Amino acid sequence: MKVHLDCFPCFFRQTLIAVRLGTKDEALQAAVLKGVTEEIRATDMSKPPAHSTTFLHRKIRSMLGKDPFTEVKSEYNRIALGLYPELKTRVVQSEDPLWTASRLAIAGNIIDFGIFTSIDIAGTVKRALHTPLSVDRYEAFREALTRHDEVLYLLDNAGEIVFDMLLIEVLTGMGKRVRAVVKGVPVLNDATAGDAAEVGLDGKCMIVDNGSDCIGTILELTSPEFNRVFKRAGFVISKGQGNFETLFSPEGDSCPGKEIFFLLQSKCDVLSKDLGVAKGAMLLVRGGEPCRESPAWRD
Amino acid sequence: MKVHLDCFPCFFRQTLIAVRLGTKDEALQAAVLKGVTEEIRATDMSKPPAHSTTFLHRKIRSMLGKDPFTEVKSEYNRIALGLYPELKTRVVQSEDPLWTASRLAIAGNIIDFGIFTSIDIAGTVKRALHTPLSVDRYEAFREALTRHDEVLYLLDNAGEIVFDMLLIEVLTGMGKRVRAVVKGVPVLNDATAGDAAEVGLDGKCMIVDNGSDCIGTILELTSPEFNRVFKRAGFVISKGQGNFETLFSPEGDSCPGKEIFFLLQSKCDVLSKDLGVAKGAMLLVRGGEPCRESPAWRD
Repeated sequence: MKVHLDCFPCFFRQTLIAVRLGTKDEALQAAVLKGVTEEIRATDMSKPPAHSTTFLHRKIRSMLGKDPFTEVKSEYNRIALGLYPELKTRVVQSEDPLWTASRLAIAGNIIDFGIFTSIDIAGTVKRALHTPLSVDRYEAFREALTRHDEVLYLLDNAGEIVFDMLLIEVLTGMGKRVRAVVKGVPVLNDATAGDAAEVGLDGKCMIVDNGSDCIGTILELTSPEFNRVFKRAGFVISKGQGNFETLFSPEGDSCPGKEIFFLLQSKCDVLSKDLGVAKGAMLLVRGGEPCRESPAWRD
Repeated sequence: MKVHLDCFPCFFRQTLIAVRLGTKDEALQAAVLKGVTEEIRATDMSKPPAHSTTFLHRKIRSMLGKDPFTEVKSEYNRIALGLYPELKTRVVQSEDPLWTASRLAIAGNIIDFGIFTSIDIAGTVKRALHTPLSVDRYEAFREALTRHDEVLYLLDNAGEIVFDMLLIEVLTGMGKRVRAVVKGVPVLNDATAGDAAEVGLDGKCMIVDNGSDCIGTILELTSPEFNRVFKRAGFVISKGQGNFETLFSPEGDSCPGKEIFFLLQSKCDVLSKDLGVAKGAMLLVRGGEPCRESPAWRD
């Protein structure tokens, strides 16, 4: 997915959300808005939006002199942990814990304070468990998983990682060796090693740092160590829109030699239009094949 | 009204509308979006948004090498002229033609292709004639008018000027000498002398050119001749949000020594929040006094 002209207003919307979280000083807020015009002007139209916003958020943090998402990340780690016991019970008691946990992992993707200013977690969980996904390759996901012992799990946001933890626990319970990937440097409300520790995910699987502050997974910006890990991975679970933007290809050429499944909600007009789905659509997409609406629905 | 941080995304939204009207060349569209970052960066936060967008639209025209609104202006002049006979009948047959024509003039303000990409003219006319205005100083408007023989009428958009023509005809019928003010240079879909001629307004009143391409009425950017005309005016009708942004003051200090009434729809979140009205609210505001919601409603 390439950056679209309609992403330009959104560059400022994202900046506004970040500066309002980061400071009450209106003059500084205005200065940051003006400051990011340099990064917007430098937008590479051949790259995904996540590429531009990576540089945008670097500038925002630099001008604010801090990470504006620290508090909201901790807050939503706590909120999601409060929901964990009930969600864990649902997974354990369900007929197909892998199905239930994968749906909850998609539901958790609603926690995104880079895009939203308010969210409805309970309603999203209900929607994930009781309505069809817009694209649903769950059967292929389950089948492909039987052929792999190792899972590389690309995390997305703080808070959301508690929902991912449910799926990771199911995977480790199936005997899979899971490595969960966090950002090396805070960016947006993306999960870092600190967030993984905050919710106890580091006790459930190995945490891998991608050595980068990129939004999504921009391989040329991540560390050589992470590039080696990613290259060797046979089975990848990719969470969220940033990872989808930067790794999905319907032709299978972006992630050669691996099975990759994308669990996400389509949160913006541009991506939704691109995929032909409604804004807010929940998706379980298989990499390397067209992202097509699926009529399949589980009773 | 000063530029607000939430205006920044809208600067790009307005640019997008203009470039899409002006060219099908996506590389040029992207270049213009990047080009206007210079003007956005130079935003004077102490001035109204119309100030920034004046420079923005100068850059857009310059980079496109043309006025992107030429066709849409002519199209809506034609569409509005098609509605004129029926609307004229409504005014003539109404109990209070000044009331009906002023309401229709507010309805006509829906024609704005700098902000909207589609509009519902019939629905807006119905709303203007059958529901209360959010701020309604009609009685003061009618009363103040009795004390003046001359009216300076600041026009807003092409197409809309056909609706203004109905009100101007009522005013001239009341014996008032009306001068209607157009932009000196095409900007956005604002009416120019060419538009006034296209709809026949030049046969109904004197047309005055403000010598400028400013959005709204920015006196320091308009010609010395227009400044003289404006300074001498005792009674002013100001149409649209741009003129409101640049001329309205609740303290009466922005237009000293004159009665000024603003007929407009509040088309953006920022202004609506500022005034405490709903987006899309219709307003007949008196300059020099607070813009307050009015419960007054005519049976």
